[in-house]
Amino acid sequence: MAFGRVASMDRPDIQIYANVILGEGAIIGQWVIVGEPPSGAAPGELRTVIGANAIIRSHSVIYAGNLIGQNLQTGHGVLVRERNEIGDDVSIGTHSIIERHVKLGDGVRIHSNVFIPEYSTIEAGAWVGPSAVFTNAVYPLGRDAKKTLKGPHLLPGAKIGANATVLPGVVIGRNALVGAGAVVVHDVPDGKVVTGNPARIIKDVAEIDAYEVLGQLERRGEV
Amino acid sequence: MAFGRVASMDRPDIQIYANVILGEGAIIGQWVIVGEPPSGAAPGELRTVIGANAIIRSHSVIYAGNLIGQNLQTGHGVLVRERNEIGDDVSIGTHSIIERHVKLGDGVRIHSNVFIPEYSTIEAGAWVGPSAVFTNAVYPLGRDAKKTLKGPHLLPGAKIGANATVLPGVVIGRNALVGAGAVVVHDVPDGKVVTGNPARIIKDVAEIDAYEVLGQLERRGEV
Amino acid sequence: MAFGRVASMDRPDIQIYANVILGEGAIIGQWVIVGEPPSGAAPGELRTVIGANAIIRSHSVIYAGNLIGQNLQTGHGVLVRERNEIGDDVSIGTHSIIERHVKLGDGVRIHSNVFIPEYSTIEAGAWVGPSAVFTNAVYPLGRDAKKTLKGPHLLPGAKIGANATVLPGVVIGRNALVGAGAVVVHDVPDGKVVTGNPARIIKDVAEIDAYEVLGQLERRGEV
Repeated sequence: MAFGRVASMDRPDIQIYANVILGEGAIIGQWVIVGEPPSGAAPGELRTVIGANAIIRSHSVIYAGNLIGQNLQTGHGVLVRERNEIGDDVSIGTHSIIERHVKLGDGVRIHSNVFIPEYSTIEAGAWVGPSAVFTNAVYPLGRDAKKTLKGPHLLPGAKIGANATVLPGVVIGRNALVGAGAVVVHDVPDGKVVTGNPARIIKDVAEIDAYEVLGQLERRGEV
Repeated sequence: MAFGRVASMDRPDIQIYANVILGEGAIIGQWVIVGEPPSGAAPGELRTVIGANAIIRSHSVIYAGNLIGQNLQTGHGVLVRERNEIGDDVSIGTHSIIERHVKLGDGVRIHSNVFIPEYSTIEAGAWVGPSAVFTNAVYPLGRDAKKTLKGPHLLPGAKIGANATVLPGVVIGRNALVGAGAVVVHDVPDGKVVTGNPARIIKDVAEIDAYEVLGQLERRGEV
Repeated sequence: MAFGRVASMDRPDIQIYANVILGEGAIIGQWVIVGEPPSGAAPGELRTVIGANAIIRSHSVIYAGNLIGQNLQTGHGVLVRERNEIGDDVSIGTHSIIERHVKLGDGVRIHSNVFIPEYSTIEAGAWVGPSAVFTNAVYPLGRDAKKTLKGPHLLPGAKIGANATVLPGVVIGRNALVGAGAVVVHDVPDGKVVTGNPARIIKDVAEIDAYEVLGQLERRGEV
């Protein structure tokens, strides 16, 4: 295993904790922490695994206890809290925050300034636009709020527009498209486009030329 | 007074300015600044007081001239500008920004990515969800805009949903609840729930089971 | 040329790459990068020019290949990607992100937490409020999305309220005002005020007392 620019003896500018397994070819920017112990865990207590060819840009913090695939890319100042499962070829943009117990499938792209709370699931190939915000507590500080946390669930290929807000437990269907600035309070069926506050269905993704090939494949049941 | 991991001789990775009084048990993450001089003040000119047991996580910046109680917790990359009054047991989440002349009461919780501008007041036990944005100028760059800045005022126990926007000077009533993504242009009475853009009253907090105990206490006038 | 606190021999806490031309009087905060090579470029390959009297606050990252005027001010944790043209007297607030191929005219003020994507144009004197989000792809990941990227275009003096969302290619007219939390899907004519989701015209800027002088000048055709 090679460590790119990581070898911590040579890098007083970064902090790589014990029990971090970093794949070959990793490039770690300046003032980065990998393996930060979460509250209640000792440094090095939780194993952190990041696959080959990760690029972790400056000022980012990745907590211990994450299992992350190959080709991870982060922007600058990203925060990934503990105990997430992140697939291959995932990109997390500048200043975005991934809380805990989150699943990100292969090829998921999270743009900049995004907030993803605990117990969210984002399946393969989904896209989350800049400054989108997901939530996981219908009634913050309410009775049992902490026991019933449930984030949104994006099915494969779902796309969330910039600055959209997605309410707790909402399911965004396969290849569905949420418009920029929408506030999504109900589930969105597969292949539908929603906009507004509250978000309402305005058309089918299959009607959109730019997604034409996708639409044809969908109609044939190939995706 | 003990300084936890603070002793600056041993910590070339942080910057603690002169005239910073940091209570016992403080834990300061890497690449943190405490006591940053605001424009027009010399380093160390303004006193900064932070009570016991503060946890200030990595990449955060706290300006000089703040008076902060015990048990402060910040996330990563938090910014607290100068001349704020912050109570005990306050938590300010990752990447959130507190501007100047802000009052945060005891037990206030500010989640991640929140923006709180000058002359905002958030009373005890209020909760501000992720990516919520408060404003303080009705007409930016307008005549007298700088002289008439006035942020929102949250009464005790008010809760602001994720990605909500609260207009200047708006009063959010005691235990009121602002829905995620709402744009609040009018005052919200005590105990009401508002949603939408512009936000409108949709029900009473007392009707919400999860806040039942709270509702009972309110009906009896105990909170 | 003097380098203020920049002289990199004395500043192991910052990273100034080769081929960065930094004007006199620059003040560079801690843990800052200037001249970060973008993907595909070697360190120092692209020239970066920043005019006199820049203040670049802590934790900020400015990529190589930018041409920036005098009196630049950034907040903390700002990201400016490569190949932008930025005028004189521009201010970019804490945690804001300027992507690539962006033009910012003289005197532009970008507040905190703002996201400005590729191929946006913001003309002289325009103001962008905290947490506003601009977009540049009508159909993310759609066919030709990358070839047809086009951000918003703000004419001189346009003002965008906090947490507003502006759709791709939308033109915001001269001195127009977009309300906080608005989602702007259509062009806004000169001097109009829009609010809501989707944003609709509600009045003229000329009717607003706080902008009275501006209104008078406009009616006389002087601005």
